[in-house]
Amino acid sequence: MIAHTDYLWFNTKKRQEFIRITDEVRAVVKTSRVRDGIALVSAMHITAGVYVNDWESGLIEDFQVWLEKLAPAGLPYKHHQTGEDNADAHLKRTIMGHQVIVPITKSDLDLGPWEQIFYAEFDGQRRKRVIVKVMGIE
Amino acid sequence: MIAHTDYLWFNTKKRQEFIRITDEVRAVVKTSRVRDGIALVSAMHITAGVYVNDWESGLIEDFQVWLEKLAPAGLPYKHHQTGEDNADAHLKRTIMGHQVIVPITKSDLDLGPWEQIFYAEFDGQRRKRVIVKVMGIE
Amino acid sequence: MIAHTDYLWFNTKKRQEFIRITDEVRAVVKTSRVRDGIALVSAMHITAGVYVNDWESGLIEDFQVWLEKLAPAGLPYKHHQTGEDNADAHLKRTIMGHQVIVPITKSDLDLGPWEQIFYAEFDGQRRKRVIVKVMGIE
Repeated sequence: MIAHTDYLWFNTKKRQEFIRITDEVRAVVKTSRVRDGIALVSAMHITAGVYVNDWESGLIEDFQVWLEKLAPAGLPYKHHQTGEDNADAHLKRTIMGHQVIVPITKSDLDLGPWEQIFYAEFDGQRRKRVIVKVMGIE
Repeated sequence: MIAHTDYLWFNTKKRQEFIRITDEVRAVVKTSRVRDGIALVSAMHITAGVYVNDWESGLIEDFQVWLEKLAPAGLPYKHHQTGEDNADAHLKRTIMGHQVIVPITKSDLDLGPWEQIFYAEFDGQRRKRVIVKVMGIE
Repeated sequence: MIAHTDYLWFNTKKRQEFIRITDEVRAVVKTSRVRDGIALVSAMHITAGVYVNDWESGLIEDFQVWLEKLAPAGLPYKHHQTGEDNADAHLKRTIMGHQVIVPITKSDLDLGPWEQIFYAEFDGQRRKRVIVKVMGIE
């Protein structure tokens, strides 16, 4: 069994940004030489998420508008008494999910026709990591 | 280590349908001959989900009413400018989740007393797939 | 490959309670002797969740207030016609998620600086289990 680990780094220009990372995950899987297995892709910071959905800019805007409605910024959150101002980012990432498991078959990501992997940043403008842990057989 | 892959196919009669798939997942695990490990069960289409919860028709209706409230159909979503009309299905599946990992112990699904695995279709009436990737030791 | 299984038991005093379980999960990983791999941490009851986020009491209160807004108790849920009164607990756990996969690197949990694992109970005051399934190489 192979276990291979890599980390993707992000430092977004905007506070909130959605970034497609399918190709970066695929590259880690190729390097791992796993033929059959899984890749865990997981945000290591608690105001960011990782999710699988459509690569369509309109839908990405819909997600952002929707998240603002379900988990608005600017409310008097208790968390802000610590000096933080990002409680909404913790909630938004909870809705999107913070990790996905991508199946690997025949040495490639086994994704459906429209599945793309995204990093969702909700409190960016600083360096953050995503772990990619690949496990399987050669 | 064993890695075994199968695909479950769905073509629902209604646009939205929740289908119990515990038995289908269990059958794949039996075929894999994995005694101790995990099964990834993951929707390969981005307007469908996979989740674990109760097999009780009232609760399933509650889920559907609740999702319609949190992610309504019929809003002027940006995604619909592409000709699509299913943005709400992308959002609903995000709340439910698109994949679960089922633990396998003693050659069977290691589920709690009420845990059942469901496929949640939000834009059906066409052929769609779920991947079941089983990994573990014999 | 190693596959190691353990179960964490909970019996909360209050109906709703969030409990940090990072140390308990780490202890299971140490016992497993897995050096490189993953740990699945998954609630076995369908009114409880497992999630990763901040260990900060204000934010935990924010989560609870927020969940009550998105999935209120006391509505005339269909599920309650069975005699149950916990439909909201099923919905709340769906938002938080019922499982996480924790990567293991160099024989320890490979977590970011603020990542903590939590058990989220939404219908407690009775015995419930979480499975920890560790897989990987020694």
